[in-house]
Amino acid sequence: MGKALKSAGYFIDEVYSRTHKSAEKLAKELDSKPVVQLDHIAPNADLYLISVPDNAIGNILSEINVPGRLTVHTSGSLSMNVLQKASKNYGVLYPLQTFSKDKSLDFSNIPMCIEANSAANEKILMRIAGDISQNVKLLNSAQRKTAHVAAVFACNYANFLFGIAEEILREHNLPFELLNPLISETARKVMENQPHTVQTGPAVREDIETMEEHLEMLNDFPEYQKLYSLLAEALIKNHKKKGKE
Amino acid sequence: MGKALKSAGYFIDEVYSRTHKSAEKLAKELDSKPVVQLDHIAPNADLYLISVPDNAIGNILSEINVPGRLTVHTSGSLSMNVLQKASKNYGVLYPLQTFSKDKSLDFSNIPMCIEANSAANEKILMRIAGDISQNVKLLNSAQRKTAHVAAVFACNYANFLFGIAEEILREHNLPFELLNPLISETARKVMENQPHTVQTGPAVREDIETMEEHLEMLNDFPEYQKLYSLLAEALIKNHKKKGKE
Repeated sequence: MGKALKSAGYFIDEVYSRTHKSAEKLAKELDSKPVVQLDHIAPNADLYLISVPDNAIGNILSEINVPGRLTVHTSGSLSMNVLQKASKNYGVLYPLQTFSKDKSLDFSNIPMCIEANSAANEKILMRIAGDISQNVKLLNSAQRKTAHVAAVFACNYANFLFGIAEEILREHNLPFELLNPLISETARKVMENQPHTVQTGPAVREDIETMEEHLEMLNDFPEYQKLYSLLAEALIKNHKKKGKE
Repeated sequence: MGKALKSAGYFIDEVYSRTHKSAEKLAKELDSKPVVQLDHIAPNADLYLISVPDNAIGNILSEINVPGRLTVHTSGSLSMNVLQKASKNYGVLYPLQTFSKDKSLDFSNIPMCIEANSAANEKILMRIAGDISQNVKLLNSAQRKTAHVAAVFACNYANFLFGIAEEILREHNLPFELLNPLISETARKVMENQPHTVQTGPAVREDIETMEEHLEMLNDFPEYQKLYSLLAEALIKNHKKKGKE
């Protein structure tokens, strides 16, 4: 997000990190100054952007001292109110996307989920988010947490299923690339349709024979066997429910 | 596949279906003739392509009478040898893709998985598959079944997870479109990386606090709660295993 802000014309004064190395690396990319002690950061910035793992924010907030300055976190699952500790002006800028360390993403389509503790702060965050993305949404903490759980299923767990597929193929010396067109099409389909209306496969057909054969083939992967069964079961149940709606 | 074959210049003489309506519909699209009784089909075609649900093929094979003619099924999970019943020349043309009834797909990138009972038949099927796709693979029955199980995880179950995400969002009046950029990026990432190397989310970080909060938020969805736990558990275990490799 630092890079996206910089590209949009924002000046990033300082970059804090616990280690010199990572503070320097990011500061260099952002034409900024590295800081490794929180009590050394400049006290008069317009915005303090805290983007750390959820379980690290507690320490940051107890060390940072910027009373009154707009302080923002970028987490999907943390309540906005955790920031009360740091400042009386606070909010959230949550980019609903999956990030890789070594790959910069185009932010223009990423949903920026905004929340702020006052209308004035909301306006500021809306403007900042709008400068880096065309897809800005106002979400309160409960909605943001809901979006985050949904994202765990649609991204983290979907990726885990891709990994299971890869492992099964590798075990039989088949390349994972074989599934590329299938994965693309699966993702494309749900952009245009409700997922349950385009559901295919043996479970939705209740093709017991094929599912039993699949379970047998998964004998070497007891964990995936269990997942296969539970997913099939939930899918069948869900499909019956949808059919009745 | 009928449309792809027709586009590639193949002549489709007859289309069989159990019902007049669907036989006529497809026959019309393919400039072909509808047939509703299997014992009425022309006995001298170069290829008989059987594309029906796996559990329907038994009936077809016991009624069809085309001895010696090349007879092919399109299933990912049926062994090639089930076709012995129908002819002494047989094989498989399995397109590794997910299909929707009302949407024609470009076949040129779809992996066409080929198997045949002789080198001569393999050559014929390779040529036919090569006329509709640039992505033709020779897979024996065991490999094809493996690809099919992998596809169930990467497509059918991934789509089910997208559906769970949609349901969770809808319950809180949030639009599923919110996840579009995330789903696109999740799919894009695994085209270029091994899935486990780009795994993100609370499970891989072993962020117990967030996972517990998510489970609580899923109280209204006990089935999805169970899935969330099992997926988290398997993911953590898997990640530790990969870390040691």
